[in-house]
Amino acid sequence: MRISQLGEFGLIERIKAKISNDDSVKQGIGDDCAVLAYRKDKYLLFTCDMLLAGVDFQPREDPYLVGRKAIAVSLSDIAACGGLPHHCLVSLGLPINTSVKFLDRLLAGMITLARKYKLNLVGGDLSRAKELVIDVSMLGAVERRRLVLRNGARLGDIIFVSGPLGGSIKGKHLRFSPRIRESRFLTQKFKINSMIDISDGLVQDLSHILKASNVGAFIYEGLIPLDRQARNLEDALFMGEDFELLFTLASKDAKKLISMRQKMFWPIGEIVDKKYNLRLVDRRGKPRKLRIKGFRHF
Amino acid sequence: MRISQLGEFGLIERIKAKISNDDSVKQGIGDDCAVLAYRKDKYLLFTCDMLLAGVDFQPREDPYLVGRKAIAVSLSDIAACGGLPHHCLVSLGLPINTSVKFLDRLLAGMITLARKYKLNLVGGDLSRAKELVIDVSMLGAVERRRLVLRNGARLGDIIFVSGPLGGSIKGKHLRFSPRIRESRFLTQKFKINSMIDISDGLVQDLSHILKASNVGAFIYEGLIPLDRQARNLEDALFMGEDFELLFTLASKDAKKLISMRQKMFWPIGEIVDKKYNLRLVDRRGKPRKLRIKGFRHF
Repeated sequence: MRISQLGEFGLIERIKAKISNDDSVKQGIGDDCAVLAYRKDKYLLFTCDMLLAGVDFQPREDPYLVGRKAIAVSLSDIAACGGLPHHCLVSLGLPINTSVKFLDRLLAGMITLARKYKLNLVGGDLSRAKELVIDVSMLGAVERRRLVLRNGARLGDIIFVSGPLGGSIKGKHLRFSPRIRESRFLTQKFKINSMIDISDGLVQDLSHILKASNVGAFIYEGLIPLDRQARNLEDALFMGEDFELLFTLASKDAKKLISMRQKMFWPIGEIVDKKYNLRLVDRRGKPRKLRIKGFRHF
Repeated sequence: MRISQLGEFGLIERIKAKISNDDSVKQGIGDDCAVLAYRKDKYLLFTCDMLLAGVDFQPREDPYLVGRKAIAVSLSDIAACGGLPHHCLVSLGLPINTSVKFLDRLLAGMITLARKYKLNLVGGDLSRAKELVIDVSMLGAVERRRLVLRNGARLGDIIFVSGPLGGSIKGKHLRFSPRIRESRFLTQKFKINSMIDISDGLVQDLSHILKASNVGAFIYEGLIPLDRQARNLEDALFMGEDFELLFTLASKDAKKLISMRQKMFWPIGEIVDKKYNLRLVDRRGKPRKLRIKGFRHF
């Protein structure tokens, strides 16, 4: 049997089933970050992301943007758990004929973003490779009471996103701002019940929240904010790498958030009983079941 | 200019010069692990290692041994700093036609070693790739007073290795035992002044200690323990991936260590003034300068 027959999420389940950890692991495989015992009032957040030429960026892409993205995707994972980033390591596989100029641009993209988010670049590994490969591993921390996982969505919660969706393929995936500030605002002011960053597409990432929380959802076509670059609703529903936050909170809190007239957050739906699965309500009020699909490596 | 003209260590220096970190970073780029503020009495150790098909293992190699090695090399870095491993993440780039059986074997190698060293496997990232690539990032901790870096070697220190050298190419690089236990024994009983794991070859890794500590060394041909598989002295001096510990301690402590008749540690030389650089003393007592060479990616 080939791994493509199990699919990316089948593989993750298979790996998860083989592993047992000790009590210092609050959350292992299956969320945006691993959550680890740290201090009395804080958890460590630990995450990694691998970027490969031809998969996550085009080989001819500006290396500054590639370096920037390599750091940004892990920052987005830290944001999705409510935390602040602290340190990162960078493993670089470089083709032997890489120019020093290319490497300098790649590093400049990383360092610029690291500075902006007060992230220390504390080490890494260099290796010869046939094609450029970058793996960033990142450490952050979150106050225990501000930790948000995928598994806390409750019946009646309102679902929000932190920005317009569907613009990824036109370049947003290389230029997005990781939503650290927005996440910290939310976890400071509200009890956020569940959160994830949209890396595989709205529908697929929402389905992760629904599965982990054992609930269903209605989302409203008329409420989903479309990126100016989105070609159609499909782009907003199924296209990966928007890197916006997708989160849920109780309706009382949701009203408060909306009344703040923050232009940062869009309500797009609500959490319902698991039996409804995930449904899209069209502009005439008619719900239809959504097939769970989005970006998958396998 | 191509990166190969700068060389691996030139590149590392170039990257290091661009980076500035805050006070929570006790040691950034340039040692076996990054050393980070943690608790009053402990530091966090943070390290990563990337393994690529065709560079770090042959594509036809038993995936169990490849998975094992991917974990072992990072364990060896934690050992080199005197610490204990706690958590790791695994980023996997897999060719689309990988079999589930292959993946299961790869994981089995990782999990077996992780269990043995009480290491939690807390997450990772899966990605499509043309060739197998594995990046493991690992977190450990070390008591502040037991932390060992490369930069503490002192005049008169005796230089030791933790095992016979030069057997790497015959398979040791896939089967070695990371020297966690040995390292903990040493840092419990002695003040270890400097330590590194031999990943690039005895001479090259010793040169890292010498440079960081601003000293020189004599090593004695007759004292260097040869692996049964080593073809000659050159293998022991210059071949990478022995993954033994190379460390120095004051001569008084060294005598004590030797008198313990531990069969784990071999004295091979002594730390001398920087002006001597690194010299090999042959069996007739004649010293010759050693060219610093070993495994380099670029």
